[in-house]
Order: sequence, then structure tokens, then C-alpha cells
Amino acid sequence: MNLISSRKQLLSMKHLSNEDIHQLFSMVKEIEKGNGPSPLQSRFAANLFLEPSTRTKSSFHIAEKRLGMEVLHLDGMDSSITKGESLYDTLKTLEAIGVELAVVRQSEVGLLNSCAEELNLSLINAGDGCGEHPTQSLLDLYTIHEHFTSFQGLNVAIAGDLKHSRVARSNAHALKQLGVNVSFVTKPEWQDHSLTTNYITMDEAVDRCDVLMLLRIQHERHDQTMSSTSYLEQFGLTKEREARMKDHAIILHPAPVNRGVEIDSELVESSKSRIFRQMTNGVTVRMAVIQALMKGEL
Amino acid sequence: MNLISSRKQLLSMKHLSNEDIHQLFSMVKEIEKGNGPSPLQSRFAANLFLEPSTRTKSSFHIAEKRLGMEVLHLDGMDSSITKGESLYDTLKTLEAIGVELAVVRQSEVGLLNSCAEELNLSLINAGDGCGEHPTQSLLDLYTIHEHFTSFQGLNVAIAGDLKHSRVARSNAHALKQLGVNVSFVTKPEWQDHSLTTNYITMDEAVDRCDVLMLLRIQHERHDQTMSSTSYLEQFGLTKEREARMKDHAIILHPAPVNRGVEIDSELVESSKSRIFRQMTNGVTVRMAVIQALMKGEL
Amino acid sequence: MNLISSRKQLLSMKHLSNEDIHQLFSMVKEIEKGNGPSPLQSRFAANLFLEPSTRTKSSFHIAEKRLGMEVLHLDGMDSSITKGESLYDTLKTLEAIGVELAVVRQSEVGLLNSCAEELNLSLINAGDGCGEHPTQSLLDLYTIHEHFTSFQGLNVAIAGDLKHSRVARSNAHALKQLGVNVSFVTKPEWQDHSLTTNYITMDEAVDRCDVLMLLRIQHERHDQTMSSTSYLEQFGLTKEREARMKDHAIILHPAPVNRGVEIDSELVESSKSRIFRQMTNGVTVRMAVIQALMKGEL
Repeated sequence: MNLISSRKQLLSMKHLSNEDIHQLFSMVKEIEKGNGPSPLQSRFAANLFLEPSTRTKSSFHIAEKRLGMEVLHLDGMDSSITKGESLYDTLKTLEAIGVELAVVRQSEVGLLNSCAEELNLSLINAGDGCGEHPTQSLLDLYTIHEHFTSFQGLNVAIAGDLKHSRVARSNAHALKQLGVNVSFVTKPEWQDHSLTTNYITMDEAVDRCDVLMLLRIQHERHDQTMSSTSYLEQFGLTKEREARMKDHAIILHPAPVNRGVEIDSELVESSKSRIFRQMTNGVTVRMAVIQALMKGEL
Repeated sequence: MNLISSRKQLLSMKHLSNEDIHQLFSMVKEIEKGNGPSPLQSRFAANLFLEPSTRTKSSFHIAEKRLGMEVLHLDGMDSSITKGESLYDTLKTLEAIGVELAVVRQSEVGLLNSCAEELNLSLINAGDGCGEHPTQSLLDLYTIHEHFTSFQGLNVAIAGDLKHSRVARSNAHALKQLGVNVSFVTKPEWQDHSLTTNYITMDEAVDRCDVLMLLRIQHERHDQTMSSTSYLEQFGLTKEREARMKDHAIILHPAPVNRGVEIDSELVESSKSRIFRQMTNGVTVRMAVIQALMKGEL
Repeated sequence: MNLISSRKQLLSMKHLSNEDIHQLFSMVKEIEKGNGPSPLQSRFAANLFLEPSTRTKSSFHIAEKRLGMEVLHLDGMDSSITKGESLYDTLKTLEAIGVELAVVRQSEVGLLNSCAEELNLSLINAGDGCGEHPTQSLLDLYTIHEHFTSFQGLNVAIAGDLKHSRVARSNAHALKQLGVNVSFVTKPEWQDHSLTTNYITMDEAVDRCDVLMLLRIQHERHDQTMSSTSYLEQFGLTKEREARMKDHAIILHPAPVNRGVEIDSELVESSKSRIFRQMTNGVTVRMAVIQALMKGEL
């Protein structure tokens, strides 16, 4: 795998070829089969979450422990390691005390890339502000592949604030690269015609798609010109719409769900929903990524 | 054991029969005998403490690790997993990523019960506001039983703010169920005659009781109409009172102690005090509860 | 080793003889040779950091885990264990629940000593305000000894705010005890003539010293009457000065470095710098100290 010029880092989906992605999926399936010996016994990981994300942090923690690793947690509260100190110096410090893998969430797009050149430890971008979050993309892709066993010719509709979500945009990019037909549902003010012109309505999306990827509304990033109910009616998945979806179609959402906004609360655990399955897959996908980075298996 | 309709949950003392309690005590004694193999090796617990409680959290942590478990910590600071998300969705998320036991402290009485129906993971209520805290009750009971080897006919006096302490009330309920004579010492404004009329003075209590259970004064929940010294003199355990207690009598307190308020500072580690012994027993009692819930041994 | 009257505590450098120090160094070298069995398997440590210090906390965490220990973290955020409770009661609580080693950082000089008398657990002072931080001193000494293999006759210059840094003063004391010639570089207002009169300029220091120990500027403790640039020019290590240092001379700094203040940014990872090596040695030095305290090997 060519994760940033052969270094041991996963910073962006852009560096993964289709072959890389499918190799990771094979590793996930091996992991799902059973509990072999812990391949990374007693090696140290540091989860450096300078922005809150308990869900992703917990998922990485479990992935690391299931691989046998020891885990250090460094949060935004632990200001001393970052106060008056660059992220680079913090990561170099972790390297010096024996940490071999750093998982980093922080707010500045591209900051991690600028540090990565000089570091020897394995490095995973776990979200850089509005930027990339490659393991989230990989678990979305794996959940689709698990259900359909192929990407070729699938119709995926992505619904939500595409303009402010670079994760959604990098998902869209990877899906197209894998042979998927991607269309988008969003409010007019969230459309970005430099990116795509393939905008459809929610009603068109539910009729046509094999996969409906709902995005989370970031209440904190938008003014509230629209009520939750009216968002659900115009751009969300109501029970009426869900009933019209294809039999084999599935619903994805990165969670946490705003119940009654992006999706009717009763649909969160419905038969088409893969929302909690995505979380389960998140652990095994992260185990595969960590193994690939640390053991150079790809 | 019938922990809430045969599910794997300990939410309230009310669901434990005398037989359940004694079976747990037998398990504690087995645990005390030695270190067998860790029976829950590599299974995941999550300690979800949305209100501060380092003492209880540390006790559960040690109990879980001594059983071989891996432990995730989710605090009130980790707001992202609970921000805009119900406790139910948080627990369902933990279940999805592989957590098999959740220990939850949060402030809303009864909230955990409303979540519990739909969850498969083992669940322990570690304090819901002014509500229940069943493992604290069990460690109190165990400490009494350890000393007297029987409950029948014991005289227990509970001293403090009974009105606002549902833990004390559920302790009183369990003690009566186990055959103990329970009386109460409290300020007139903290009496609750719908509960009991068996109020006595502190001086009567020390003369009569086999067990003196002191409650912690919650300074934050009361106005300060009374000085610490005058509280100690009227309702606390002074050295003079302690000297009058029966030879075999013991003193309990849930800690942290307000030294010089509920009890004279010099008595905290006196020969009658079981205050630190309660903490030691807390670990083994919690190990027994976790094993009972997760292994279905009862 | 006589760590405070034969108890299992390391609270101050003052209690270590030269022989103690060299015995610890021998243990570090054994640790560096390889991974024997974890000698403290499944025993519990508590890291109680009431003041922020992620670097030291992470270093102790790794040291403890490499020895096989389980680790509890208690931070300043975890106020409940310390709120309305003395440090003594907190440590006694940890002892009661099975903790055998406490590593404590807190702000009150001498507070730990006053607690230590009555405690049975092993205890390490990890910094008490402006007071002692003996494992930091030991890792500094080890890094010097690792390079020169002897202390006798070495010239060490300590540069920075000696007046407010008791760590630097206890380092100076230990170095003299080990046969080192120690001189000081500091601003006139930071000089303390009751301590020493051996003040030299930075230019004299770089010409003469074998070891240049830079101290961290504590921005939060000083008014800013001097710009960063002018501090670097007068009292810091510029590239011009570094070029004049002896071939075998080395540079130490406790980190985090204020790049461009105490030292030119480009010199932090230069060939003479041992700044990241100090961090690496910090882990093995702490492993040796913990083993010495807990296993009574010295």
C-alpha cells in the first residue's frame, strides 16, 4: 500500500487505490473470522484527540486493545503537551518515549501533513476539522461492500450538507473511483456546482438508490433558518419515503443521529438501517488499517 | 438471580432477594481467597461517569481489571458521545463497538431503567442523582456481615440526612429485609414520618447500636444554618460518644468523610471504624456483581 | 537505598546518595538490554496529576505498563476524590482499594512529605509546584552519564531562571555531590547570591562547558519585560554560540522547548542536542525507580 509515499501514514483517502481498499477489506474479513494471537502485543498507541470525539476515540481504543496494544489517551484537556508547543513537537515527544502509533484528531486542515514528513511513528488522521477522516470513509465503504459484495453499478445518494462536509466529498470521490453512480440531495444554498451538477430531490433519491448516505446536520455550524420538522420533510428520511425504497437498499449515517431531523427516529434501528452496523465495522476496519500501517503487510 | 426480570442488569437493590445477596457474598469470599484465572479476559467494560465520582470509578476500574477486562472511560467531559444524543443511543453505540458491560453514573433518577429494556449489554447503576447506588449498598451490607457473620437481630442506627438520601433509604429497606432492627438519627427538618417514626438521639444510638452508619453531609445540597462543630456535637460521632459504644460495635461511612463534621477526625482510622475496609470490600463486591451479571452464575 | 528513612518513597533528590544514583543507573542499563518478564504484572499504580503535565504523566504511564502494571489516572478534573478531602485521605483511599504505587503531582511544596509518614504504598513525587521533581533530575543525570560515562571533573553550565526553579537547584546540588563543576547563566534579577556566586555569561558558558543545561522559561510566572528575541540573544543558545561549543559537549533541556527563546529552533534536533534522548531515558529511569521502590532491590 502506498500510504503517502510509502511512509506509515493514513492521512487522506486520496492516497488509497482501489486495490489498497480491497486489500484492507480482505484483512477485515480475516479479523472477523476469529481471535488469533494479538499481533501488536505490548506496543504503544497514543490517541491524541484535541477536539471531542468520544465515539471515534472509543472505536480506536477497542481496535488497538484487540490488537494487543497499550493505549495512551491525550485529550484537549491535557493542555500541557500542546500548550506553547507545536503538534510536531508533541508527536516527536511521543515517539521519543516509545509510542509507535499516533491517532490524531485536531481542527487545522493539513496540519498533520506538514508534521508527517519528519516522523517515524505510524500516523492516522482521525479528522482534521472540516477535512478528511479516512477511517470513517473506509468503514462506510466496507459496510456497503459487505451488503452488496461489489461496488460496480451501484446507485448511492448522499443527502445533507455536502458543501461543508469534506468527508462526504472524499467519500463521493472514492465511491466514483470504485465504479459507483453518485448523486446528491441538499438545500440549494448547500449546493456546490463546481463539484457536481448531479443534484436530485429526496423523493427521487429514495426511488432510485441502492444506498442512502445521510449526513449529520452540524447544528453548531449553521444558523437555524429551518425547523427540524421541515428539514425532515424536505431533505430527511421519513417513514413514507423509507417504504418506497428498493427492497435491498440500505441506509447509512455517520452518527450521532439527530433523531427526527435527518431521519425519523423509528427508522434508526429498522431493517434497512446499517447505522449501528457501521459502528461495529468501524472497529475491525481500524484494526486492519493499524495492522497495515504497522506491519507493512500491504 | 433475578436482576430486573432475568436481564443482565443491576439497577436497584429492590430486585435482590436475601438469597441473591447471600449468593453474592459467597462469591466475594471466593474472590478473597485468591487469584484464579481472570474469568473475563479481554472483554470490554465502559465506565460512563457523567457526574464526578473518582472513588467509585476507581473501584470499578480495579474490579474490572482484576477480572481481566479492558476498560473504556467516558466522562462528563467527553461530551460528544452524549451531546445531542440520548443515553440510550450512547449505550447502543457502546454495544455496537463491542462493549459488554456498562457502568453508569448520571443525574436523572429512573433514566437508566427506561433505557434498559432494549439493551443487551450488562448494566450497573453506579448512582443516579439522589437515587439508587446498589453496589454501595452491597458493600455496606457485606462489611456488616463480614464482622458479625449474620444480620439477624442486629441493631443498626443510620445517622444523617435521611430525607434526601435514597441510598440510605434503600439500605434501610434491605437491612430490614435481612432481619435487622433499624433506627434513625437526624435533624427534625430531615425527618420523614411517612418513612419511619423510629427516630432516636445520637446518644441513644451510640448506647444501643451494633452498627453506626454515618451518612455524608452534602454541603452542596443544604444551606448552612448550622456550623460544623455544632453538627458534630448534636448529630455526629464525638470521641466521648465513641467511648460509650459497645465493644463489638462498628462504624460505617460511605466516604469521603467530612472530618470533624460527621465524625471526629481521630476516629476515622480507629479500631471500630470500618471506613477504609468498606473501600477494600467495594472492589471485591463489584467483582462479584460483574461476574454474576456477565457469567449468569446466579 | 535509603529513600526517606527506608520507606518506599522517592520525594526528594536529597535522600539519594551517590551510590544510590549509580545503582539506579545499573538498573536502567539492565532494562535497556531487553524485555525480560514484566516484574510487576497486574499490580496497580495510580497517577495522580492535580496539575497538568501530560509529558511526565505519559512517561510514567509507559514505564508502569512496561513493568506490567495496571494504571489508574486521576486528574485535576476528577475533583470528587480531592474535593473536601485531604491528599492524605485520597492516598489512603487508593491504598484501601489495592493501589500499591502512587505518582503524585500537585502544587503545594512539602504536602506530600506530611502525608508520607502514615502511608504504606510506594510514593513518587512527580513535581510539587516550584519544588522537587526527582525523576526529572535522575533522567538529566543519567543522560549526562550515558554520554560521558563519568561525572568527575565535568563542567556543567545551567542557564535560565535559577531563582524560581528548585528543580534546577536540586540538580545543581546533586551534580556537585557527584563531583561536577557547576556554573550558572541568568539575568541579574534571577541571581541568588545566597546560593552561589559562580555566575558567568552565556558566551563564557558555551566556551567552557561539557554540558549546557537550558531551563524552560515559565512565561506564566514572569512579566514580559524582555522579548523572546532579546532573551535568545543574551541568555539563549544561538547557532553562533552552538558552533563554538566543544566537540563532545551536549545540550539538555527539560522540555517543552520554547523554540527561538531558550534555544534556536534549528538546534533542537541537532547532533549535540540530547533533548529527545532525555525523554527516552525518562521512561527507563522511571522503570528503575519504580522497581527499586516496589521490590526493595536496593
